[in-house]
Amino acid sequence: MTKKPLILVSNDDGITSKGIRVLVQVMKKLGDVVVVAPDSPQSGMGHAITIGETLRLVEEDIFEGVQAYKCSGTPADCVKLAKHYVLKDRKPDLIVSGINHGSNTSISVLYSGTMSAAIEGAIEGYPSIGFSLCDFSHKADFSHVEEYVYKIAAQVLKNGMSKGTALNVNFPPKRNESIKGIKVCRQAHAKWEEEFAERYDPNGRRYFWMSGNFVNFDKGEDNDEWAIANNYVSIVPCQFDLTAHHAMKQLHEDWDWADLK
Amino acid sequence: MTKKPLILVSNDDGITSKGIRVLVQVMKKLGDVVVVAPDSPQSGMGHAITIGETLRLVEEDIFEGVQAYKCSGTPADCVKLAKHYVLKDRKPDLIVSGINHGSNTSISVLYSGTMSAAIEGAIEGYPSIGFSLCDFSHKADFSHVEEYVYKIAAQVLKNGMSKGTALNVNFPPKRNESIKGIKVCRQAHAKWEEEFAERYDPNGRRYFWMSGNFVNFDKGEDNDEWAIANNYVSIVPCQFDLTAHHAMKQLHEDWDWADLK
Repeated sequence: MTKKPLILVSNDDGITSKGIRVLVQVMKKLGDVVVVAPDSPQSGMGHAITIGETLRLVEEDIFEGVQAYKCSGTPADCVKLAKHYVLKDRKPDLIVSGINHGSNTSISVLYSGTMSAAIEGAIEGYPSIGFSLCDFSHKADFSHVEEYVYKIAAQVLKNGMSKGTALNVNFPPKRNESIKGIKVCRQAHAKWEEEFAERYDPNGRRYFWMSGNFVNFDKGEDNDEWAIANNYVSIVPCQFDLTAHHAMKQLHEDWDWADLK
Repeated sequence: MTKKPLILVSNDDGITSKGIRVLVQVMKKLGDVVVVAPDSPQSGMGHAITIGETLRLVEEDIFEGVQAYKCSGTPADCVKLAKHYVLKDRKPDLIVSGINHGSNTSISVLYSGTMSAAIEGAIEGYPSIGFSLCDFSHKADFSHVEEYVYKIAAQVLKNGMSKGTALNVNFPPKRNESIKGIKVCRQAHAKWEEEFAERYDPNGRRYFWMSGNFVNFDKGEDNDEWAIANNYVSIVPCQFDLTAHHAMKQLHEDWDWADLK
């Protein structure tokens, strides 16, 4: 009998979110599932880790037949605790994070707790995928994406991943039209343009609410924003080596190195 | 009279740390300085932003002749609040973050709050630099790096930066020997290997302390770890487009696309 693959599941919306329930259900068809996920929402946590504070880890019987733990830390903490404590000497064949309620396309990958769990997995050398649905509703409809989650995870289990990379998979929201297929994309050139609402608390002290508008500068048709807008699943392979090799040349050429001695 | 450059200063160790005081002193020689920095330590916050919670911003008269604010949010929040609220219609000519107490070489760039402020600046299109000293002591000696901070910032003010990049500058700790010079580097291939100390609180509930050992796999002499070990200042230009272009080809070639229809 072939050993079933071991699949670690995490997310950033917290262990009780609908998206992780859907992801666990799909992963159970592919392997043995272990869940280590935050005990509270961790959206926007980026690649934060917990330094100088303690972490809690509590076993929870909330997914049928699945060993599951809620953790007080960030998504990256969850993967670290899973690797070094929960799984100990067992090595996961796949790490999946999500399914996030909300888009993680383009620049949002940097702020994403969902993707930080996947990238943490890639740093540890495991094939890793972050899944996000471009619908931030608490009760978002995931029915149209389950088959894609299954098929993409199956491909990664079969083929492995390029060293040093994790997949950022985004799904279009449920529309009348079926999803058209999958596009392997680059990260779109876009950013968030924030607004700050200035208010005063009952004690007269000022505070702010941050909100943001997504601004897409990218006119290409080979990026994740285009794919989602056109009802395709977007897959962007992401790397954690941030070196901008092209910019090294510019520094050597433009800078006055005599002055820097 | 030439207008002095406007320089925004932030960090992740908090507005009262020694490193930001040194950075402000040096930047005052180069331009008009505005500080927006966290009101408490934000080490390891990665590119976290504050979603679903309020932000505080309070003016503080702690740097002589400098407009300064402490913010309850993350380093990335500080840059966003600075851009959209504190500076309003004034555009910074340079954003600097640090000087961090502790190394942000290699993979630590992902976890670094210092670098998230710089990368946030780059996303907004401003020349941006994160400075870190490889000495995490609260009272670290910065005397040997001040001239390099000045000269590197002056080069960036003069030459600008490659679009879509921020500089990750790390300084060796104070040693008997003088710093040998500057190396433009790539991010070293290394990771943190965590350990979790398992303890029980007075109520018998389990908790963990995370600690980590840095493991360097990189044998090259063109990376930031080598530079610091050999008493050079390391400069790595970092990008926020995480697309792993080489891995896109692998996905197209290895995956069974017929099966994914």
